Amino acid sequence: MGEKYLRPDVLAMSGYTPGEQVNQCIKLNTNECAWGPSPAVRAALASYDVDSLRLYPDPVSRGLREAAAAVYGVTPAHVLAGNGSDDCLTIIFRAFVAAPQKVACPWPTYSLYDTLATLQGVGIDHIDWLPGWQLPTAALAATGARVTLLATPNNPSATLVPRDQLRELARALDGILVVDEAYIDFAHGGDGLGASFLPVLDEHPNVIVLRTFSKSYSLAGARLGLLFAAPALIAQLEKVKDSYNVNALTQAAGTAALRDGAHLIELVRKTIEQRELVCAALAEHGWTWPQSEANFLLAETGSVEVATRVYDGLKARGILVRYWAKRPDLNTKLRITIGAPESNQAMLAAVKEILAAS
Amino acid sequence: MGEKYLRPDVLAMSGYTPGEQVNQCIKLNTNECAWGPSPAVRAALASYDVDSLRLYPDPVSRGLREAAAAVYGVTPAHVLAGNGSDDCLTIIFRAFVAAPQKVACPWPTYSLYDTLATLQGVGIDHIDWLPGWQLPTAALAATGARVTLLATPNNPSATLVPRDQLRELARALDGILVVDEAYIDFAHGGDGLGASFLPVLDEHPNVIVLRTFSKSYSLAGARLGLLFAAPALIAQLEKVKDSYNVNALTQAAGTAALRDGAHLIELVRKTIEQRELVCAALAEHGWTWPQSEANFLLAETGSVEVATRVYDGLKARGILVRYWAKRPDLNTKLRITIGAPESNQAMLAAVKEILAAS
Repeated sequence: MGEKYLRPDVLAMSGYTPGEQVNQCIKLNTNECAWGPSPAVRAALASYDVDSLRLYPDPVSRGLREAAAAVYGVTPAHVLAGNGSDDCLTIIFRAFVAAPQKVACPWPTYSLYDTLATLQGVGIDHIDWLPGWQLPTAALAATGARVTLLATPNNPSATLVPRDQLRELARALDGILVVDEAYIDFAHGGDGLGASFLPVLDEHPNVIVLRTFSKSYSLAGARLGLLFAAPALIAQLEKVKDSYNVNALTQAAGTAALRDGAHLIELVRKTIEQRELVCAALAEHGWTWPQSEANFLLAETGSVEVATRVYDGLKARGILVRYWAKRPDLNTKLRITIGAPESNQAMLAAVKEILAAS
Repeated sequence: MGEKYLRPDVLAMSGYTPGEQVNQCIKLNTNECAWGPSPAVRAALASYDVDSLRLYPDPVSRGLREAAAAVYGVTPAHVLAGNGSDDCLTIIFRAFVAAPQKVACPWPTYSLYDTLATLQGVGIDHIDWLPGWQLPTAALAATGARVTLLATPNNPSATLVPRDQLRELARALDGILVVDEAYIDFAHGGDGLGASFLPVLDEHPNVIVLRTFSKSYSLAGARLGLLFAAPALIAQLEKVKDSYNVNALTQAAGTAALRDGAHLIELVRKTIEQRELVCAALAEHGWTWPQSEANFLLAETGSVEVATRVYDGLKARGILVRYWAKRPDLNTKLRITIGAPESNQAMLAAVKEILAAS
């Protein structure tokens, strides 16, 4: 009965559907890292003074932002920390858009952008990627959106937009460009900062860059994301975030992870090594995919029938990949996370078996 | 330059100002618990498998909600977990209100409600408490607000609204009543559930109850809040929350804390014992306050001059209390958190010294 007081938009919406989380399965469906976080994270948590949890955390994550600034070549004033990059995205929606303004994104992309637009009560323009997952710069600029959201590498295609094209888009927009770099550490053969927008951020005051700790830092369970922008904009966005949005344990874990650059490099190296093995094996089935610059790939199986059969067959064997059965633009494809060697081998063997049985 | 794209509401607002967080100070300004959390929390964190942080947390905090259901006499379907009760409040605002609808609350109260109204772009009606901090039921009902927010015990007055009056208000409202029970474990001499709305929640489908782990559970640093409502309403609100809003470490810590009821009782007992000592000592200065049912009290010092002098004098001695110098309704008062014995003694001695020096 309390439901009658809900906003009609909320009542009508379906929530964002996270990838399935099932115990005892091989999870190649949510793009988590195949290996654990830095030993420095373990040490930071082990030495954490649990009694100090009685106190509120630092509301503006000072130590974490200093560590991030050192890694990413910016100042702490360029950084805002969030309870996952999902929190950073929520902050952006609440700060910049109100109906009748709208947002825009290339399509297909991360479906959470749609959920957040509905929650904010604003429209979202989906602009199809040009063939070969090329950036539709002119069409995006023509939307007049207050905020344009661009994931690079894109999810689910794993494709990268070159920095020069992003700069061109930023200049063409009369609005904010959000460059969501969740997967960028896996791009350019592991030279994430080389592919990133961060080195040129100061030249583009209408650009916000997002990073997450859920992928290359292997801290999805800790919930941590970073938002980078001009200091004047960060000061405004701090007013919009929940006062104490990042808990103290996660601040400690994230700071430790940032300071162990060698572990990050090793996780990325092993992921790319496995990506090459998985690609080589799947290619034998005639499957194709856009070049992956992330820790997953979007495999074209050739038909809805094959995609369905492989998805179901994998699931029956306890192996989860991501499949969007109801999406005509994606329902011949499977999004497969690059896992640990044994997970990948189990997946590859199962795919081979399922296809052979047809 | 990116600021020109901000919502005018956001640009104009001042952010919520958390109480000062200063190192090496005696902090009696943010109503944290004086003692640390349960040893079970320490054990849960020490045995936590850090490698599993590579995986996303349970998006709907199953284990935590089961533990909460057992403690509070509801089912897990009545519970939604948030990244602090601030997150729960944000979920409520986003789910229920859009302009031209508005919200309402008795006044003065927790100022975050105002911040959240501004962020959601809706108005907020402040209805003055009746003399003696009595509930203005008719005036609240007359606002026609979509959501009415009521903190009990109230912040900053520490006063409790009896459950029967809340039920009457819930029946009188054509909208949602949020009963924010952040401090209720300290009410009724420590019989928090006896004072709580939770035992009658099922009779009031338009009521939402909030709890926090930042006070009686002494986990402010971990960020955890609970939202209780009818299961049909919880199902709708789950669509509005961030997918993975509570991190895995906090879920583990909160579950452990809930299972150690004895520690909670002990923290509440010690807090109430200290509250009585502090009250007795402050009464000697002729100060008064509404009866405290929380872990703080709102002391009437008699004048702006005395309040200012005591606040400044305490701060100079490294003791922080909460003072709203710019609020005509509060600027003769100080909000003082009940701390550990040594903190309280230091505060009481300093107050005595400051007053004697006048």
